[in-house]
Amino acid sequence: MKAAIIGVTGYTGLELVRLICKHPVLELGTLHSHGQHTKNSAELYPHLNDLVEKTIIGYTPEQVMAENDIVFFATPAGVTKEEAAPFVAANFPVIDLSGDLRLKDGATYQKWYKKTPADAKLLKKAQYCLPELMDKKPGNLISNPGCYATAAILTAMPLVKANLIEATPLIFDGKSGLTGAGKTLSDSSHFVTCAENMTMYKLNEHQHIPEIISVLQQFDKSLTNIHFTTSLIPVKRGIMMTLYAQIKKGVTENEIYAAYTASYNHRAFVRMQPLGQLPQLRQVVGTNFCDIGLGLNVQTGILTVVGVIDNLVKGASGQALQNFNLWAQLDEDTGLRDVPMFP
Amino acid sequence: MKAAIIGVTGYTGLELVRLICKHPVLELGTLHSHGQHTKNSAELYPHLNDLVEKTIIGYTPEQVMAENDIVFFATPAGVTKEEAAPFVAANFPVIDLSGDLRLKDGATYQKWYKKTPADAKLLKKAQYCLPELMDKKPGNLISNPGCYATAAILTAMPLVKANLIEATPLIFDGKSGLTGAGKTLSDSSHFVTCAENMTMYKLNEHQHIPEIISVLQQFDKSLTNIHFTTSLIPVKRGIMMTLYAQIKKGVTENEIYAAYTASYNHRAFVRMQPLGQLPQLRQVVGTNFCDIGLGLNVQTGILTVVGVIDNLVKGASGQALQNFNLWAQLDEDTGLRDVPMFP
Amino acid sequence: MKAAIIGVTGYTGLELVRLICKHPVLELGTLHSHGQHTKNSAELYPHLNDLVEKTIIGYTPEQVMAENDIVFFATPAGVTKEEAAPFVAANFPVIDLSGDLRLKDGATYQKWYKKTPADAKLLKKAQYCLPELMDKKPGNLISNPGCYATAAILTAMPLVKANLIEATPLIFDGKSGLTGAGKTLSDSSHFVTCAENMTMYKLNEHQHIPEIISVLQQFDKSLTNIHFTTSLIPVKRGIMMTLYAQIKKGVTENEIYAAYTASYNHRAFVRMQPLGQLPQLRQVVGTNFCDIGLGLNVQTGILTVVGVIDNLVKGASGQALQNFNLWAQLDEDTGLRDVPMFP
Amino acid sequence: MKAAIIGVTGYTGLELVRLICKHPVLELGTLHSHGQHTKNSAELYPHLNDLVEKTIIGYTPEQVMAENDIVFFATPAGVTKEEAAPFVAANFPVIDLSGDLRLKDGATYQKWYKKTPADAKLLKKAQYCLPELMDKKPGNLISNPGCYATAAILTAMPLVKANLIEATPLIFDGKSGLTGAGKTLSDSSHFVTCAENMTMYKLNEHQHIPEIISVLQQFDKSLTNIHFTTSLIPVKRGIMMTLYAQIKKGVTENEIYAAYTASYNHRAFVRMQPLGQLPQLRQVVGTNFCDIGLGLNVQTGILTVVGVIDNLVKGASGQALQNFNLWAQLDEDTGLRDVPMFP
Repeated sequence: MKAAIIGVTGYTGLELVRLICKHPVLELGTLHSHGQHTKNSAELYPHLNDLVEKTIIGYTPEQVMAENDIVFFATPAGVTKEEAAPFVAANFPVIDLSGDLRLKDGATYQKWYKKTPADAKLLKKAQYCLPELMDKKPGNLISNPGCYATAAILTAMPLVKANLIEATPLIFDGKSGLTGAGKTLSDSSHFVTCAENMTMYKLNEHQHIPEIISVLQQFDKSLTNIHFTTSLIPVKRGIMMTLYAQIKKGVTENEIYAAYTASYNHRAFVRMQPLGQLPQLRQVVGTNFCDIGLGLNVQTGILTVVGVIDNLVKGASGQALQNFNLWAQLDEDTGLRDVPMFP
Repeated sequence: MKAAIIGVTGYTGLELVRLICKHPVLELGTLHSHGQHTKNSAELYPHLNDLVEKTIIGYTPEQVMAENDIVFFATPAGVTKEEAAPFVAANFPVIDLSGDLRLKDGATYQKWYKKTPADAKLLKKAQYCLPELMDKKPGNLISNPGCYATAAILTAMPLVKANLIEATPLIFDGKSGLTGAGKTLSDSSHFVTCAENMTMYKLNEHQHIPEIISVLQQFDKSLTNIHFTTSLIPVKRGIMMTLYAQIKKGVTENEIYAAYTASYNHRAFVRMQPLGQLPQLRQVVGTNFCDIGLGLNVQTGILTVVGVIDNLVKGASGQALQNFNLWAQLDEDTGLRDVPMFP
Repeated sequence: MKAAIIGVTGYTGLELVRLICKHPVLELGTLHSHGQHTKNSAELYPHLNDLVEKTIIGYTPEQVMAENDIVFFATPAGVTKEEAAPFVAANFPVIDLSGDLRLKDGATYQKWYKKTPADAKLLKKAQYCLPELMDKKPGNLISNPGCYATAAILTAMPLVKANLIEATPLIFDGKSGLTGAGKTLSDSSHFVTCAENMTMYKLNEHQHIPEIISVLQQFDKSLTNIHFTTSLIPVKRGIMMTLYAQIKKGVTENEIYAAYTASYNHRAFVRMQPLGQLPQLRQVVGTNFCDIGLGLNVQTGILTVVGVIDNLVKGASGQALQNFNLWAQLDEDTGLRDVPMFP
Repeated sequence: MKAAIIGVTGYTGLELVRLICKHPVLELGTLHSHGQHTKNSAELYPHLNDLVEKTIIGYTPEQVMAENDIVFFATPAGVTKEEAAPFVAANFPVIDLSGDLRLKDGATYQKWYKKTPADAKLLKKAQYCLPELMDKKPGNLISNPGCYATAAILTAMPLVKANLIEATPLIFDGKSGLTGAGKTLSDSSHFVTCAENMTMYKLNEHQHIPEIISVLQQFDKSLTNIHFTTSLIPVKRGIMMTLYAQIKKGVTENEIYAAYTASYNHRAFVRMQPLGQLPQLRQVVGTNFCDIGLGLNVQTGILTVVGVIDNLVKGASGQALQNFNLWAQLDEDTGLRDVPMFP
């Protein structure tokens, strides 16, 4: 099967190239970009020399559908909502890595993304697919979760599902590497700004917040708000999501741990750390894993959960392939189980 | 006045050298180390060539007292408790940067530091001096606060003092650069381990926890526990302390902000950020400032407070000089107000 | 075929694990370490959870030979020379990643490595295998080149071979990331020492110098010395080798470029950059490529050649597998052509 | 005396602020920027809160001259040549940190800077001031050397002056941190591009080349070319300049070393390392020092010299103040001898 990538020059587009090249069923089809038409991929990205030498071109939906079996939108927010319609109309499989189709409610999208939402019919058709929450083949319009949202939901879900927490809000403290901010140039992504620095940004204003709430609400209707902070740390890849939750009286660390293993033991990409051990960021970089560790403070009744992912893999392109695998009815880890680079 | 430094080859010892050289009243006296006797400071540390060329030697208390007016212990935990007695007996001024004299209760020290505590008389004589909480000249045995403790206390104190928080525990999420871990060699401080990584460690087990509780209890007897996590981020200097606190119903962000300005407006080294702005780590590196910003989430009722310090300056050697200034009845910012290196 | 790894807990050992897991013919056999007996690989290295969970054990040669088809020594200098004999005696295939068998002359080894050399018979039997210089299947005792040596030789060889340089010495200016220094703890590999720093070390004293001279002499007997400096830069992986060479009068940049392409066009892992373009370090990280770019200064007659490799892949474990491929008469790039992580 | 800074929002402008605040004779006058009019310095740069709170404004020459005693142009190439004339006409003291007035020959400027040169009369009046080469008070139009040029000239000058080198070209291999590239946003200064990377750029095309040649020619007329490469390393501050020079037969390392000490022993800011020791980048960061170490390879006759500076201090703003000191007939190290931050 052949995959087209729209937005191949962004970080998640390049990561799709890397991962698709290793996939046993999917192969690279055509590569597209809105800005870098008719350049060779290896000319733009010398790491691709001798490996992927394809011309990056503009696209028409007809062309893409004629030459490929599926299309990935690895575009910033605002593109899919304008450009996905012809593919959807033709029932051509689309996996969208942007935020455009994640929120069912257009007004919420408008509030958090500061853009006009996608057409209601498109939103209705789109299926939000966090693989660890799915049990059947998705349809032909897959909305891939956000990076912070993936880390937050996987870190919190078993707690919410098993009804182990008090009514006080969940507090998420997320830290991300700079690829999370995309390749757009800004003072805040200049090397001189980032090195030897750490910055909290978008305090309770990150656009993944409604996505997280919406998913967690499926497990507990009363969960209507979360507390959510995001920070940049001077690394290239990776999200460390720390969750603080007030646990119900009497619930033990072992019961909590059991809730996590019950949720994830049958899934390929969530690895629970042994009790007493927390995951380091670097152990998932380059992989599709979400590694989770936890510890209960019996004095305060507060649980700390730490979840780490690679924002470009499990937080974006790897998860998109995991969704492809589910869609194609392959094992969810097909092509995604390589030993990562370490150290 | 002349200052002796015991433990000059550690990070805080070297930072004392830097800061004392800029101080208008204090000057470098004799430099001591337990391990590097009779080496020239500039031979060990080429940045000191032509600036500080003094022989680093072992010491006897008699010598130190004969040639200096005050002594700084910039030693790891476990040294002062064994070696401070002769100075104290002679009523010679001592500023201790280690954790040995911070906890009044020996048993608590033993539990958290895993060492036998200092003699009870020594503990009784020692005075814990966080300058922002002091209003008069300290005595001759000053215990300098810990780096995480300084950041945590300054970040939380106005809230506790003004009685603005619910009974739920304060949650501190602290991140530190690698100088905070000291120069001791370990896998966890190897460049290859730290670069492109972030690691949470000592979950609710950091030895500064009882110090923080003990200080905050002075403002609210009912505060008996905190939730406290610590992480290493790949920077050399700096602590970012994030505090999450459930605020009492009806308390506004402006009231909270007013509590902070009331606590700190008359102090030289706490700079409140304007509402709507959080401090970045780099803006305090190299300085004795603690910069604090905050934001209230009206949906969740949770307040986020972010405090940043340089762990080697406000978290150690700069604060020791600030304490010296108070002891010498100088302005607290004497010698400590340089514009820092930026960027 | 099954591969044993002796010294699996070092950086090159772990990299062998990563690469062997992707190899279509070779698979992981038994894992050995001199220091970490009977620990599970995933317990020591959480990134291996669910991927490689094997007990790391001590070894006897008999065991290793009984359960594997080939053995890789990923050990520091000094081990192979003591431990390889039983394997060699049994004609069991050995690939040695250490420096022990690279120099034919024991006295030279002793001078540069400061250790007693391997037995003369072992040295005689060992075959130094830089794949790009080989045209037939190697024997059963393969000595894998050093990381700096690989970069230096590939960067200089076509010049020497085509006789394009004046008699003045070649000047190599090499820079390496910290994995090149190994995982041994020292002040010079502490994060606080390395970050925001660059250090030149072993000026004309690096132990790879005689290895480089010895290989280049095969192409020009008169080449008896090189000028060779090595520096640490604050990155984890990668060597950038810069070569300065005085070019014979009248030789053009195009002729030089042609010499390089003639040497490498038929090889899988040397990628010549187009004229006018130099390779960046990051474009080879994680790969077995050596990317080379060059530029002739017509004013000075000096050629600059820049070669970049990943010291743990092309400089060590990837090259070892490339040698395995040659030994096993597979294509030299079997299992080694993945698109690398980028950025 | 009061100093105006034009271009205060750039890296060298901010560094002037830092250094002037510590100077005992000079103080901050008015602060100017072409783009950030009427913002408070502390609003733009929170590290300046409570320290430097001045409005950054546009300027007219009249205003600047009325309120200050000297003006520093901390502007990119192309500004001074257009804006300095009124100050020069009034014989008002100007120190220019840009490249506009460094090259006496307008055509050379045009060739290397790709801009039209300054007026010939302005160029004639300007005095290129590398303090270590000066022995008397400079006039009122001071052209401050470039950062790479400072490092290169100080590293090479004693060799050239003492006539110790063969006729073969000097080879300079320079590495710089990212502040050297300025705060302009580009792919090449994005954190994700720079971290874990090293890039050589402007091979023999750096605009400091004619400046270096011009100065070295004052000591040896026959020196008409140099070989000069520049690379970016992932640090914020600092230049490491490595020089390779073929030494005349029979000249010993001690003689070479003596030439360096003869050149620099009477100067405040060049510190020769003991023979056998090379300077690390970090030992000069934050200081106005140039630290130099060297080693002669007796096999190849090639000398390695390593010089390190902080590009923003000795390479720009610190040197500008050193020039001010000479101009004001103060000791050249007035206000510039602080112990730097370490580590």
